[in-house]
Amino acid sequence: MAILVVGSVAFDSIETPHGKRDHCLGGAATHFALAASYFTQVRVIAVVGEDFTPENEAVFLKHGIDTQGIEHAPGLTFHWTGEYEGTLNEAKTLGTDLNVFEKFEPKIPEEYRDTEYLFLANIDPVLQARVRKQMPKVKMVCGDTMNYWIKDHAANLAIVLRELDVLLINDTEARMMAGESNLVRAAEKVLAMGPKSLVVKHGEYGATAFFGKRSFEKQGHVTLPFRAPALPLAEVVDPTGAGDSFAGGFYGYLASQKELTPEVFRTAMFYGGVMGSFAVERFGTERLQNVSREEINARFRLFKEISHLE
Amino acid sequence: MAILVVGSVAFDSIETPHGKRDHCLGGAATHFALAASYFTQVRVIAVVGEDFTPENEAVFLKHGIDTQGIEHAPGLTFHWTGEYEGTLNEAKTLGTDLNVFEKFEPKIPEEYRDTEYLFLANIDPVLQARVRKQMPKVKMVCGDTMNYWIKDHAANLAIVLRELDVLLINDTEARMMAGESNLVRAAEKVLAMGPKSLVVKHGEYGATAFFGKRSFEKQGHVTLPFRAPALPLAEVVDPTGAGDSFAGGFYGYLASQKELTPEVFRTAMFYGGVMGSFAVERFGTERLQNVSREEINARFRLFKEISHLE
Repeated sequence: MAILVVGSVAFDSIETPHGKRDHCLGGAATHFALAASYFTQVRVIAVVGEDFTPENEAVFLKHGIDTQGIEHAPGLTFHWTGEYEGTLNEAKTLGTDLNVFEKFEPKIPEEYRDTEYLFLANIDPVLQARVRKQMPKVKMVCGDTMNYWIKDHAANLAIVLRELDVLLINDTEARMMAGESNLVRAAEKVLAMGPKSLVVKHGEYGATAFFGKRSFEKQGHVTLPFRAPALPLAEVVDPTGAGDSFAGGFYGYLASQKELTPEVFRTAMFYGGVMGSFAVERFGTERLQNVSREEINARFRLFKEISHLE
Repeated sequence: MAILVVGSVAFDSIETPHGKRDHCLGGAATHFALAASYFTQVRVIAVVGEDFTPENEAVFLKHGIDTQGIEHAPGLTFHWTGEYEGTLNEAKTLGTDLNVFEKFEPKIPEEYRDTEYLFLANIDPVLQARVRKQMPKVKMVCGDTMNYWIKDHAANLAIVLRELDVLLINDTEARMMAGESNLVRAAEKVLAMGPKSLVVKHGEYGATAFFGKRSFEKQGHVTLPFRAPALPLAEVVDPTGAGDSFAGGFYGYLASQKELTPEVFRTAMFYGGVMGSFAVERFGTERLQNVSREEINARFRLFKEISHLE
């Protein structure tokens, strides 16, 4: 089934030990949509400026992504400038030009209203909640957030968390959200805030899913966490968008399946890792634009091989 | 088959957010020996002082550990004082009283000479090399080291590395040894220094094994890395000795098997994680002294459950 994603479409200027790129197509919604597009149909709600070209839009269209919800506004597209050093684990933001994104007011096209799967990428929780409200018939809602919203917009974020099926965040965000350094206890606290399930991303070490009592209502109470590996990569060219690509692979696979079972959830986490591992191989969305279904299948098998006992 | 371990038997005074313990039985060789004792017979070479009591020795004997090689010297036993804060990921050393350990000169009892499996716990690489040399018929040699030896005793360490079957170190140590921040490239450089295989421990995120061309000589060239999970734990009481306990579970299982195959190696990594997860549940070696074989089996199954796809 189709996924509706709301979030940023942006241009990223990135410097890493592997080089420099100016104004490459990026943004959370872009990485997410491209990664998910290999599994299911994706619809995007975002805003871009006059510098967003037909060539940029073609990147979405080529992957069957519906761009009706991408609003074109006067001014420039959101532009992020950042750099990575050393282990490439953390981005240093050098500039955030919100531009048209500053007054982003998500509008849901009539054709999008019946979408069953909603992804709230990392934007102001006020906007996340507003979109969620306009989709009363949605079957599943997943979302992301970041330190800025966790720290300074906790009350608004709390409203979003209450209605999430799955929250996908990283270690630091989970610990910050819970005010608790132990990851298991942090996960318990985050789950108590509302999400049925929590996926914590550990970057190069993989990801862990924590399940609450409402995670698998049809299958009864499943409490064991699940650990998915990441592929050890000799070359990480640019980690920008790795988390969004993980989310895209994860949710794209989920939305492509008939039913949400523990095994489907686990498999989705592997596909999340797979798409994240492709994303970082080149700058921006270069790799996600050109991966093949065969490569995805092969890498999925590789993820199993490097982590499975007989 | 039996394992001979050479390393420290010590008293640890530890403070963590969960409390404080004074002079609990510890040291790398102790943690290793106890963890390995659940899988195979262990022989210890270490030195202790006059404060090492028959009750302390009984801890070893109760687990069938051969203590003939524990030398009793005039003076006090090695005493480490440290504390952990926050995420408990890193120890802060408050005091290192080497005492009798300062002049430790490992002597191998005649009865130990035929031991087929040797573990060189974290001690001066000069001593590691000396022990290795006295065991010409050994079948397999594994070893550990730490930042201090990597930084300031690289030449001596290089001699030890050349003869290792498996080197077990953590992320920081692997990156420091290679002078390389990317873990895969760091692993390649470390393997080029001599060890046939490398196990990098990631603390709460599990461990990764990297294999060189000589890793599985009988089975041909196996290059894919292997990722083993760690159990997400709600309560880490004291992480002291977790790495040594991992090594004990890992090597204990290996030594208990007829042949070293990729699958045996992978299973050993799971048992390493299992023993590490027990070790941190209580202060010092308390938990390792009292775990049952049934608990170990159950936790091994749990490790599989939290990481396996159908």
